[in-house]
This record gives sequence, structure tokens and C-alpha cells, in this order.
Amino acid sequence: MIDLPVKVKKYGGTSVGSVESIRSVAQDLASEHQQGIPQLVVVSAMAKTTDKLLGMALQITPRPRARELDMLLTTGEQVSIALLAMAVHELGTNAIALTGAQCGILTDGNFSRARIQNIATDKIYKLLEEDNIVIVAGFQGITSDQEITTLGRGGSDTTATALAAALKSPVCEIYTDVDGVFTASPRIVSDARLLEFIGYDEMLEFAASGSHVLHPRCVEIASKYDISLEVRSSFHHRPGTTVVREELLEKVAITGVTGDAEIARIALMRVKDIPGVAARISKTLADANVHIQLIIQGIRHDQTNDFSLIISQEDAQHSQEILQRVSKEVEAQEIQVDTHVARVSVIGSGVASNPGVAARMFQALADNEINIQLISSSEIRIACIILEDQLDSAIRALHEAFDLSNLERKQIPTT
Amino acid sequence: MIDLPVKVKKYGGTSVGSVESIRSVAQDLASEHQQGIPQLVVVSAMAKTTDKLLGMALQITPRPRARELDMLLTTGEQVSIALLAMAVHELGTNAIALTGAQCGILTDGNFSRARIQNIATDKIYKLLEEDNIVIVAGFQGITSDQEITTLGRGGSDTTATALAAALKSPVCEIYTDVDGVFTASPRIVSDARLLEFIGYDEMLEFAASGSHVLHPRCVEIASKYDISLEVRSSFHHRPGTTVVREELLEKVAITGVTGDAEIARIALMRVKDIPGVAARISKTLADANVHIQLIIQGIRHDQTNDFSLIISQEDAQHSQEILQRVSKEVEAQEIQVDTHVARVSVIGSGVASNPGVAARMFQALADNEINIQLISSSEIRIACIILEDQLDSAIRALHEAFDLSNLERKQIPTT
Repeated sequence: MIDLPVKVKKYGGTSVGSVESIRSVAQDLASEHQQGIPQLVVVSAMAKTTDKLLGMALQITPRPRARELDMLLTTGEQVSIALLAMAVHELGTNAIALTGAQCGILTDGNFSRARIQNIATDKIYKLLEEDNIVIVAGFQGITSDQEITTLGRGGSDTTATALAAALKSPVCEIYTDVDGVFTASPRIVSDARLLEFIGYDEMLEFAASGSHVLHPRCVEIASKYDISLEVRSSFHHRPGTTVVREELLEKVAITGVTGDAEIARIALMRVKDIPGVAARISKTLADANVHIQLIIQGIRHDQTNDFSLIISQEDAQHSQEILQRVSKEVEAQEIQVDTHVARVSVIGSGVASNPGVAARMFQALADNEINIQLISSSEIRIACIILEDQLDSAIRALHEAFDLSNLERKQIPTT
Repeated sequence: MIDLPVKVKKYGGTSVGSVESIRSVAQDLASEHQQGIPQLVVVSAMAKTTDKLLGMALQITPRPRARELDMLLTTGEQVSIALLAMAVHELGTNAIALTGAQCGILTDGNFSRARIQNIATDKIYKLLEEDNIVIVAGFQGITSDQEITTLGRGGSDTTATALAAALKSPVCEIYTDVDGVFTASPRIVSDARLLEFIGYDEMLEFAASGSHVLHPRCVEIASKYDISLEVRSSFHHRPGTTVVREELLEKVAITGVTGDAEIARIALMRVKDIPGVAARISKTLADANVHIQLIIQGIRHDQTNDFSLIISQEDAQHSQEILQRVSKEVEAQEIQVDTHVARVSVIGSGVASNPGVAARMFQALADNEINIQLISSSEIRIACIILEDQLDSAIRALHEAFDLSNLERKQIPTT
């Protein structure tokens, strides 16, 4: 039996991006192993590997089938777990590498965006009891028919959190190439502040709004199973950002500003105003696995409607083709696709309770002559669709308007 | 039900070495598919991939564990089957890629040199009946414990022949980067002749003696299940070499000359002459998975023996360390390792019945001032250990001495 809770860690592609990085990760693992801490480590593909593999596929066919693409891409993680295990062995420490299939990560059959259905933990516990560091390939799973699946981009985060949940670990450490979650991207805002803490829901909105630090599905799982996520750099030992329940944190109006340029706006113009049209459009795209981030219906005077859909840029061409096909059915007069748009969002658990937030946001954008095309808001987020080339200046304007470089976010003291 | 026998093909690393080569293989497959021929295709890793992966492992540790090495190397074939399937899809033809595990290639647990124990054919037949070209990763298998194994270098040939046996196919086509099997390596002998036919046993000796065209285990399986192997180039459509039962072929004394520089000679000097010493040495090396190609014991006058072992060069260092450890036990005075040796062999079903063959061989070597260190012979082969830097001239001398550039090998007419 293992006495301590299993420490679950995830290392991203840059953290294992070279032989030197792999060695350095192995050092960290071996040194914690010597302290008697049982560890399960999820690893991504080495940096750039996934893109390289994808590039080979695209040289062969512009639209590879998802099944074979998953089979291709999963080799990336299989390479990194084998190499990391070897590096740990080289330090005289026991380690065993497991593919998704070997680790018993059972998923549904939706290639390229599969969801984990079950994780068998017997084998993991057995290997941990035998004093192994267990190293698991992220991003991948297997169906009950032995088909190899992937969980979608960033899926290694999901693998790690799902394993933490299965092993009832209270914490999952996510090692990456950034120091943690910032009030805005430090590439854009030079005085962006590292957040010591952030709530699950806020983090979800960060992830859904263009921050690539964590995968949304991973945050959902962490929230559901109450797992603290510790996001930190693998290149030094300073603390990063801890993602916990909002209730544990002092309230602040706005936690951060995010931008996403990887979106596209599809407009269906002058759609006949008959019941069920919005549903028909949504269902058609959903059936094609396109996630609609936002749908806005404006009413015209001539008994037709204009629909605006915000989707990810990579789905744009595919969606346009699909909508072209159903345009007759829904009597749309025209379909426009605009990829030169971006979304800027302010996020914070105080958005709903502070009506002044929206006003301050719009004013700051207006002051910088940034035109707002569409607005959407939720309990903890206000998002504006703007021109893509104004995104960076919008982020800087909002970061300043909400004085985020002086943000202090603390845990509520538990006494 | 499938009416025709399944055509089993194997493509080597060079045949799928680039996007262009993969496309060209896909063309050939699709065109046979259109003729209604059910096809199962075994694919190696893209040329240089295995070496690249191995290189990464060796950067991390000089002696990677076999389990993790197999996990690493098998990704190479997984990449090529995915890409080849995509290339076939692109031509509008059905194809499905299967890893060794998915194809049900069950092996024992000897990592890096596993042996196939069973192949489940139900899934293959089902996929073929659904009009798919079935594309299988060569070289790899899975144990009943879900451990990923490899069959050793060149193992894709073995995968293909084992699948042909399981599917009761009378023929297995091996596509490679050479035109077939020659009387000697055309790189060394400019007028070497392409053999239209060769017998299994001769082919086995070719494979065991340094010809890398076919993997020995593959020839064994072909012989056992009476499968004709057709070795041919994937770069044109000319016929290559067909490997069949010796009884179907007209007898010739010598079929070819092969050389192998990748050997090492280990000498154990002045081993005390007590019973069981040879057995003890053999067993120790066998336990370490070292294959002894030749063991020769010479008697000295002082009641000690000298043992000479011929092994592959890659096993040399490992074997020396092992023998160092047991040298006390067997009372060896000295262990010498020489990697500057090579083996030259003449092969042919007429060796045993033509006593003149040996004499002609030794004379040809003597005429060229090539000193023979050791000799071994079998029914269909005579091999001499010589200095490595004399190997090429030895091959040329023997090819000429046996007039192999004028060799005609025919099937016995069946009337």
C-alpha cells in the first residue's frame, strides 16, 4: 500500500523539448522519488513534434481522416514517455512508461476530440507500490475497440487532471514554459502580474478566451473533483499560480484580460424569419463537431434576420462549406466569413455584481478608438469582438483601465 | 466472404522514405484494389527513422532498457502506416491502418527480439470484407500483458510472412530498395547477377551470412508454411527474386557469395580442459540473448583449450563484459576481442554433394593472398573468417572462381 497521496504532475512539450530538458525533468522526479513521494507523471509530445507530424500528414492530404491522424499524432507522446523513462533509469531510479492504452485511459470513439470515460487504476497502484515513477503519455486514450484516440489539443492537461481525480489526489502540478497565469499576456502587457491564485470559473474563462496556459476540459475536471491545479514553470522552482475554488479567494472585480485572434465570424445575411432556423444552423454545425462560441441574431425590418456566429478559425472553412449546403434550406441570401476579427475579454468573479465593469470596459475601448462589433457577457466575463489588428492595443488599454498591474489576489484566511 | 487469396505485401523503409514514395506506393495499392484484389500491406518505419529514434535514446543513456526502447522504436512504423493510409484515402480508396496491437500480433515478452506466438485474423478478414486495404505496422507486436514488443531489426519481413501464413496466402511480396537477391552484392561485384529463383535454405544462409535483403526468421516462416517470397523493387515493376522450395529448382553448385563485416571474434585463451566448459560459455551468452554464430575449440598441448566465438559486432562489448565475469569460473587466462574480422561465405544447395567446392574456394582465396583464420561449413555453405579489409577482394575472387556472372537458375519444368 502507498501511504502518501500520489503526486500527479504534467510536463508540457517545451519542458521535455530537448535531451537536456528531459534530463532536467528526470532529475526533479528522481529527487522527489528519493524523498519517498509516489509520483505519476503525464508528458506531452516534445515541442514542435505534433506540428511536424501534422505537417507530414498535410503534405499527403489536405484533410486527413481523424482516425489515422490520431494514430499519427499519438506517436509524439509515446516518444517522450520512453525517453523520459530512460533518463530516470539513467539516474538509477525505477520508472515505467505507459501509453494511454497501457494506462487504461478509456475514451469514447470521437477521434481528435475524444472524452475520457474511465481510468483503470489497479495497474497504476501496482506499479507505484513496486516503487516506480509511473510516466504516462498525455493527450491519448483508447476505445473499448482498441482504437487509438486523442483528447484534442492541450489534452495532456486533461489526462493529468483525470488521473489526479482517479487517484484521488488533492493536487495536480502542471509544469509548463511560463511562470503561471498572468493578468494579461506578458508578451503584450509588459507589467502584467503573475496571479498567485485564481478561481476555477475564472480560469475556465481564461482558457476559453484565448489563454493557452490550461485546457478548459482540464479545469472542468479539476473543479468537479476539487483538485488544486498548480501551474508553474519547469525551468525554475518558484511558485506559480494555484487554481482553486472561488469561495476560497478574496473577491476582486477583474482578474485579467485575455485576447483571442484565432476566431472567425460567419455572418448569414437576410435569413427568412421562420421558427427553428437558429436551431437548424446550430445543429448542423454541432453534427460536424464545430463548436459555436457565440451566436447573435439581429432583427432586420424586412422580416429577415442576420445571424453572426463566432467559431474558431480552424473551423471556418469547413463551417462555410457546411452552411453553404444548408443555406437554401434556411433561405439565407448570403454567407460572409471574416477571419480578421478577434475577441478581447475581461474576466473576474466580480463582473456580475459590479455593473460598472461593462461601462468601464466600453469606455476604455472607445477612448482608444476601438470599434466593438459584438458583445457577449456571462457571470464572470465580458467579451467584445473587435478588429484583429486592434487586439493588442485593446488588451493594453483594458489592463490599464482596471489597474491590473497592482492586483493583489489572496486566499481568504482560514482560522 | 473474400473470394481471392489475400495478397500480402511488405514495403521497406526506403519504399516509404518520403512523401513522394508513400504516394507512389499508395498508387500501386489503389490500382490493384480496383482490380478487386484483397490486400494486406505491412510497412516499415520511414528510412532513417529508427536510427534517429535510437540516436535520441543513446543521447540519454548508453544502455536504454529494452522495454522502453521498443516503446520508442515502434512509433516509427505507427507513423508510416498512418501516412500510407492517408495517401490511399486521398486516392478515394478505403484503407485502415493497424498497429501491431490492433492487428492482434501476440508475441512473447522478450523485448527487442520477441517472437510471434499468435495472430488473430477475425478482425483482418472483417476489414478486408468491408473493402479495406489493411495496412499493418511491421516489426511490432504486443504481449498478453499489453506490453509493446519488437521482433528485432528487419522484423517487418517476419510480420509480413507470419501474416501470410495466418491468412493462408501462397505468396508474400517483399518490396525493397534493391532489385532482388544477387549472386553477390552489386556494390562490390559489378557483374553480379540477379537470381530469378533461390531456395529457402540457400536464402536462409544468405540472410545469416550478411545479405540484408531478407530477415532469417521470415525465411524460416515462409519455408515452414510453403509461402513463396517475391523480393522486388518498389521503384519499378520488373520481377525480382522468388524464394521457393529447393526441390522446385534445378540444382547448381553455388548460388552466391556473401560477406559480413559486422562480426567480432572473441577468443578465450588457455581455458582449463574440464568437461562442460563450452556449455557453460554458451549458456552464459545465450542467457544474455547473445547469439553465437560459430564456436570453435582448438586443443593445446598443456591441457588447456582455446575457444573462438564468432558473434555479431553489436554484441561484442556486452559479451566481453559477461565473459570477463565468468572467466574465473572457467579458468580462462585471457580474453581477446577482435572486431577487424569478417566472414566470407559461398552458398549453394550443391555444396555438400560437390567436394570440389571447398577446395576451389580455399585455392581462390590463397591465390589472392587472403589468409583464412577459421572455417566452418554446413550442407549448403562454407564460411571463412578473414581480415575485414580483405573482404571485398575475397568476394570478387570467389564470384569469379565460381563463374557466378554466368549463373542460370531455373525452376524444374512441371509437366
